[in-house]
Amino acid sequence: MKDATSLDADDALGYLRGRFQLPADTVYLDGNSLGVLPAAVPARLAQLVRDEWGQDLISSWNRHDWIGMPVAVGEKIAGLLGAGPGQVICCDSISVNLFKLLTTALQLRPGRTVILSEEGNFPTDLYLTQGISDLLGTARCSVRNVPPEQLISAMDEDVAVVMLTQVNFRDGRLLDMQALTHAAHDRGILVLWDLAHSAGVLPIELDAWQVDMAVGCGYKFLNGGPGAPAFVYLASRHQNQVAQPLCGWLGHAQPFAFEPGYRPAAGVQCYLAGTPGILGMAALDTALDCFAGVSMTALRAKSLALSSYFIDGLQEELHGGVLRLLTPRDAARRGSQVALSHPQAWGVSQALIAAGVIVDFREPDVVRFGFAPLYNSFSDVAYALDRLRHILATEAYRDARFSERPRVT
Amino acid sequence: MKDATSLDADDALGYLRGRFQLPADTVYLDGNSLGVLPAAVPARLAQLVRDEWGQDLISSWNRHDWIGMPVAVGEKIAGLLGAGPGQVICCDSISVNLFKLLTTALQLRPGRTVILSEEGNFPTDLYLTQGISDLLGTARCSVRNVPPEQLISAMDEDVAVVMLTQVNFRDGRLLDMQALTHAAHDRGILVLWDLAHSAGVLPIELDAWQVDMAVGCGYKFLNGGPGAPAFVYLASRHQNQVAQPLCGWLGHAQPFAFEPGYRPAAGVQCYLAGTPGILGMAALDTALDCFAGVSMTALRAKSLALSSYFIDGLQEELHGGVLRLLTPRDAARRGSQVALSHPQAWGVSQALIAAGVIVDFREPDVVRFGFAPLYNSFSDVAYALDRLRHILATEAYRDARFSERPRVT
Repeated sequence: MKDATSLDADDALGYLRGRFQLPADTVYLDGNSLGVLPAAVPARLAQLVRDEWGQDLISSWNRHDWIGMPVAVGEKIAGLLGAGPGQVICCDSISVNLFKLLTTALQLRPGRTVILSEEGNFPTDLYLTQGISDLLGTARCSVRNVPPEQLISAMDEDVAVVMLTQVNFRDGRLLDMQALTHAAHDRGILVLWDLAHSAGVLPIELDAWQVDMAVGCGYKFLNGGPGAPAFVYLASRHQNQVAQPLCGWLGHAQPFAFEPGYRPAAGVQCYLAGTPGILGMAALDTALDCFAGVSMTALRAKSLALSSYFIDGLQEELHGGVLRLLTPRDAARRGSQVALSHPQAWGVSQALIAAGVIVDFREPDVVRFGFAPLYNSFSDVAYALDRLRHILATEAYRDARFSERPRVT
Repeated sequence: MKDATSLDADDALGYLRGRFQLPADTVYLDGNSLGVLPAAVPARLAQLVRDEWGQDLISSWNRHDWIGMPVAVGEKIAGLLGAGPGQVICCDSISVNLFKLLTTALQLRPGRTVILSEEGNFPTDLYLTQGISDLLGTARCSVRNVPPEQLISAMDEDVAVVMLTQVNFRDGRLLDMQALTHAAHDRGILVLWDLAHSAGVLPIELDAWQVDMAVGCGYKFLNGGPGAPAFVYLASRHQNQVAQPLCGWLGHAQPFAFEPGYRPAAGVQCYLAGTPGILGMAALDTALDCFAGVSMTALRAKSLALSSYFIDGLQEELHGGVLRLLTPRDAARRGSQVALSHPQAWGVSQALIAAGVIVDFREPDVVRFGFAPLYNSFSDVAYALDRLRHILATEAYRDARFSERPRVT
């Protein structure tokens, strides 16, 4: 294996690490859960709080264009997704946005009632489809969750929309967005892609691939901070057709006319509901500037180089069969994380954290290593490998300190 | 009239102004739209961003109990609402929370299909009921909006829930929450109160008055900052009965078990949906400490003293009939704002702002003066009166500078 130091020296994207404030004495491999702090965010938030909120107060909605932020931030995100203007808006959470889009999809495909997904999808996605079916009744909406290999055969004439997550949260599998979208369209089915684990870390071409709808997360690879607002993508061709039920005042055509009846704003703007959280959105807005001048193709290449370096370094440990690689070895089929299973996965994750390598655990037996090509280095990976090998060799995961599980794992 | 300076000197709550950073050279009477910056917020946010996000990163969900914030902040708010523990949670926007609670109410009253409201309610409330009716169909949900004086006669056996805003956003009228709740209950109807313009500014006794459900706003009289998260109140007796359709992962009984099926968390916690915005919630959390040691009764007394002082000071101007008082003269029937109508209301509001008195305009002809008893003084009111009289006397509202209307009024 090549030396990490020389790989870092050759890394044309290595300078991007300077755009972030990395935690001290730590190798952070959990950017797929919460991205690190962009260096420009503290000053932006301090200025916003002190001047915009503190001094200009209510006038800031106009003077500092707070009112335009969901669109402006949405457009910045659109630039990472291959989405032309007027199709992305930043607002609410993925859960809430899924509700808006799934109810939209059902209306766009009258006569079809099934939401198709894969059974390993992120739980909130599955919960929301269940919630919609329970609310509307199975005559109007039912849920079909299948293993990924059965997706295409499950695409029948009852399916209104197929809702999939591009990169699986648990094992890091990457679905073929283009092929699955094409297959769905061939059968008259809409697609809704959850980009939580892919936005900002691999090239996506929503427009070119004719994706209908998407949602995504602001706090993972977009580095927008804890609980950053999410986003909605709705392709232009589907806009202004049907209403979405979370029709709050900021999605109105003229919110400040205070009309008693709802008239949706044109375009994707009617997917706004209540007043957006400006502090969180400003942090995300500034965080998105970390992508300035960065090619998504180059970012993807580095991401795969990092994860390949990690997998290659584990050949010996994977040989025994106790530690298993859940993520595809084929680079083209994985996102930007590597998932390992181990019978003592909780202890392994905690031993890594104790050794300064921040990873996370997922039930029942998974340790996730997220690689954020904007700020992770090959030296980060080498250190993580070294510690992981040591923990496995010494069985340090059996330490009694790791018996207790906190609320968040 | 008594001298404002001596009223301020006698004001037992005057010291509370020191808990805020007030804008320079300005009398701010728009706390009913966006509360001012609590003095402790900048340091709290800076610390959160630098240390909790920047250094402790993902571990902060446990270490700094980010995961517990919706409940913890909810309980702080509960203390202002006469709500015992386990009934209030801080999350999402009023719009989104109305959706959760209205669909809950419809399920709690099977066979009843009408959502009753008043036609002058805040638009987002009316839009959401319309959205729910459109989604579910009129056989399951229809909307009945009536003038306030017809509310009780409209409470028939078809009504599942009456949704009202305690203080009207436009004219500042205060509805009798206790009497209307009682009347609704007599007819088997649930009540859902929107406390956007009343939480934090007058005594509310949700438990004692047997209110069923409530929502409210974090960024007005609670001073949580622009777009601060809202809250949900659901009385204990209605909890764990029915599901709410925005069933996101953080409302699950065990979010980090990542189970494929939804099992709602016990109590009000299942009204959480997606990951909460921690920056905005932390600002609100700190802002709520401004209420420490403050009696809501004393706050209400000061609020009415401020608005009465304002109304009393306008007797001459109101006499002519051009300027009209929309807010009830009877103090017991108003919230914490005074609304005036004037044919040139837009110009009047802009002339006041140009003179350093921050108010706002509401269509079609309303100028609103919000009085925040935590930080507004009688001298603030005296200055506003002086400038308003001058503007009316000189017709300064006709200034050509005020011809243009920005996006947010």
